[in-house]
Amino acid sequence: MVLEADTLLEGISELVTFRDGPYRRVSMENAGIIRDAVVALKGGRIVYAGPRTTAPQIRADVREDLKGRVVTPAFVDSHTHLVFAGDRSWELWMKLEGKSYLEILEAGGGIYYTVKMTRKASASELADQAYPRLVVMAWEGTVHVESKTGYGLTGEHELKMLEAMDLLQVMAPYMGITKTLLAHVVPEEYGDRREEYIEHFTKQLIPAAKEKGAEFVDVFCDRGAFTVEETRRILSAAAAYGMKLRLHSDELADIGCSRLALEYTLYSMDHLEHLPPTIIPALANTRTVATLLPTSMLSVFSEKKPPVEELKKHGVYIGLATDLNPNNMTPSMRHVVELAVYLYKLTPLEALAAATVNAAYSLGLEGVLGRIVEGTNPGLIIWDFDSVKKIGYEWGYDTILAVVRRDGAIVYHY
Amino acid sequence: MVLEADTLLEGISELVTFRDGPYRRVSMENAGIIRDAVVALKGGRIVYAGPRTTAPQIRADVREDLKGRVVTPAFVDSHTHLVFAGDRSWELWMKLEGKSYLEILEAGGGIYYTVKMTRKASASELADQAYPRLVVMAWEGTVHVESKTGYGLTGEHELKMLEAMDLLQVMAPYMGITKTLLAHVVPEEYGDRREEYIEHFTKQLIPAAKEKGAEFVDVFCDRGAFTVEETRRILSAAAAYGMKLRLHSDELADIGCSRLALEYTLYSMDHLEHLPPTIIPALANTRTVATLLPTSMLSVFSEKKPPVEELKKHGVYIGLATDLNPNNMTPSMRHVVELAVYLYKLTPLEALAAATVNAAYSLGLEGVLGRIVEGTNPGLIIWDFDSVKKIGYEWGYDTILAVVRRDGAIVYHY
Repeated sequence: MVLEADTLLEGISELVTFRDGPYRRVSMENAGIIRDAVVALKGGRIVYAGPRTTAPQIRADVREDLKGRVVTPAFVDSHTHLVFAGDRSWELWMKLEGKSYLEILEAGGGIYYTVKMTRKASASELADQAYPRLVVMAWEGTVHVESKTGYGLTGEHELKMLEAMDLLQVMAPYMGITKTLLAHVVPEEYGDRREEYIEHFTKQLIPAAKEKGAEFVDVFCDRGAFTVEETRRILSAAAAYGMKLRLHSDELADIGCSRLALEYTLYSMDHLEHLPPTIIPALANTRTVATLLPTSMLSVFSEKKPPVEELKKHGVYIGLATDLNPNNMTPSMRHVVELAVYLYKLTPLEALAAATVNAAYSLGLEGVLGRIVEGTNPGLIIWDFDSVKKIGYEWGYDTILAVVRRDGAIVYHY
Repeated sequence: MVLEADTLLEGISELVTFRDGPYRRVSMENAGIIRDAVVALKGGRIVYAGPRTTAPQIRADVREDLKGRVVTPAFVDSHTHLVFAGDRSWELWMKLEGKSYLEILEAGGGIYYTVKMTRKASASELADQAYPRLVVMAWEGTVHVESKTGYGLTGEHELKMLEAMDLLQVMAPYMGITKTLLAHVVPEEYGDRREEYIEHFTKQLIPAAKEKGAEFVDVFCDRGAFTVEETRRILSAAAAYGMKLRLHSDELADIGCSRLALEYTLYSMDHLEHLPPTIIPALANTRTVATLLPTSMLSVFSEKKPPVEELKKHGVYIGLATDLNPNNMTPSMRHVVELAVYLYKLTPLEALAAATVNAAYSLGLEGVLGRIVEGTNPGLIIWDFDSVKKIGYEWGYDTILAVVRRDGAIVYHY
């Protein structure tokens, strides 16, 4: 019996399947690594992924000899603010010249600049500005992104951001998009009327966003953003509407946000630079993925790192994402994986699992993304290395040979 | 009168010439930035670089419309250990698992592993192993590298490393190479006979290396490496032979090495994480370039940063380099520039000057490299940005559109 395929990838030194993920602790033993492997795809799906020696006979239109390269699942970027309008590159220069956040706000910068420009833009203009970012993300090996609202803040503007994501999905059919409604900050025009905004968000925005296909509600719970009690109200309302939940937490300070992971089913809790170590053992009993954002830390010139060693020790799920936003223009998950090795001391394997199967789990998509199993296709990255142990060792440049998209198309980097 | 050219680059939004460099303090005012510029090359040399409006009539075989992109000089990488044999990627994994330097040494790793493998290799094998690294460096915009010996340690092995560099020069004629003889560590076989090794180095190696075209002598002056007094003996001997001098200094500790910049003419002093701030005002009266190596700091998982703000304040020349070596496999100067922005708070312009004209100055090559002037060609980088202020803002991936090599060939990245 001959297996018919469109594409056969041969000569794989290590196929890192992550088939038993998501992982609380990943190692060379449980990562599902198959040595001397082949992968066959038909109609975009994997029809065989396993040892060469026990493979069936395969007839393929295209045969690619990878000559001893490593293949892993493609990246899932589980935290992005990729849809926004306007250019804030000049703020970087101000920050480097020692200007304070207040001075940047007074110069017309900061998040409210992005809000102003995003509100002015049409859904189609927003999609046009986000598209080049999505193209770079795909080039760098990402096949699925989470995309947050949060620069429209109110009614039509927030919904317009969701429409822009639908347009992006049409423009880039090879990229999966999970839509998240984000309670980011209280709009300027609401002044002190925070209660009124939370009413608007919970009573009008959540149901309308659900109607428009948003799967998640996220809240920026932190000093200067939403309080724990406000966040609780938003999460409870979202849960009542059947939305899944994620959280920005403990980036600027520990104001108690992380305890919400013990009260609600949070798919992900992100940033965590100020996560109190005392809560970590309890976190390890939840499904919450601790999503770390190393480029985000660098982009705000912070030296405060999340408690990575404790998270690992207690077996909390760890995820990685870019946090692409106007303050942190890093579209590359490869770059994030490398920085996680050198800044947070994740092993290359831990960083890869965090950027693939664990990130997929944080979006509820571990069935179809981040794991190489037959019958589906998580997207593949062909690395210019002969062992997964070398990923991260040679770093700071494009070490990806090719990306196999979820539709089966191969994008070569050479 | 019509100017004849091979290539005309048109539509340059900002041509960053750095013509008045090297710089103690670089700014948008003194960086020699020409807006709405064109560059014409003939026979590999720049025959016109200036404003479009006052350009002569130019007849060119190839015209490239850059559509409002930024052009800067190409990178000079002034500190590399690119020639070596053997693979030490497995040490990264050991370090991440918490193994100590002693445990790595006991497992057969560390610098003496590289020495063992380098001694076993022929000059031609060394060149073959270094060549792919050089190719990536060139791809990432570097046109000239400094290349150190220091893994042979003695006689024929050190000279063999210089021969490998000559072979590399033949293999990659588009890349300039400055050869440096490095006093790295005392060879294991010398045991406690440090005096004897210094005799060997100063009496035999320095004159033989000079004979083989080495221009610089470098010493690893630090705790666990050479003492200040030993370094002084080596530098004095090198100076007596007419060699130029540079130094590894203050990476692991301040043992007084930096004062040598006040006693000798040092072209560069590199690392400087533990540089004592008190010496900085005096350093600013020397020609010594303080060469910072941000990826090197990350690769050893150190959080200790050099005193960048003080260096800037007093007007010490600042350089940047990769320090590519078996412990720090980062060939990309673009990556180094980006990290210098986010880790050391250099402005993108300061980081660029440090990676081009100031790096060239640290090699005594500021006449031909790092500055865009007519009659020569420092190599050019065409960036996918409309302003130099945006370099570093979008980061972590390949933001270079094309590199113009020193021979005038254009290497496109798209």
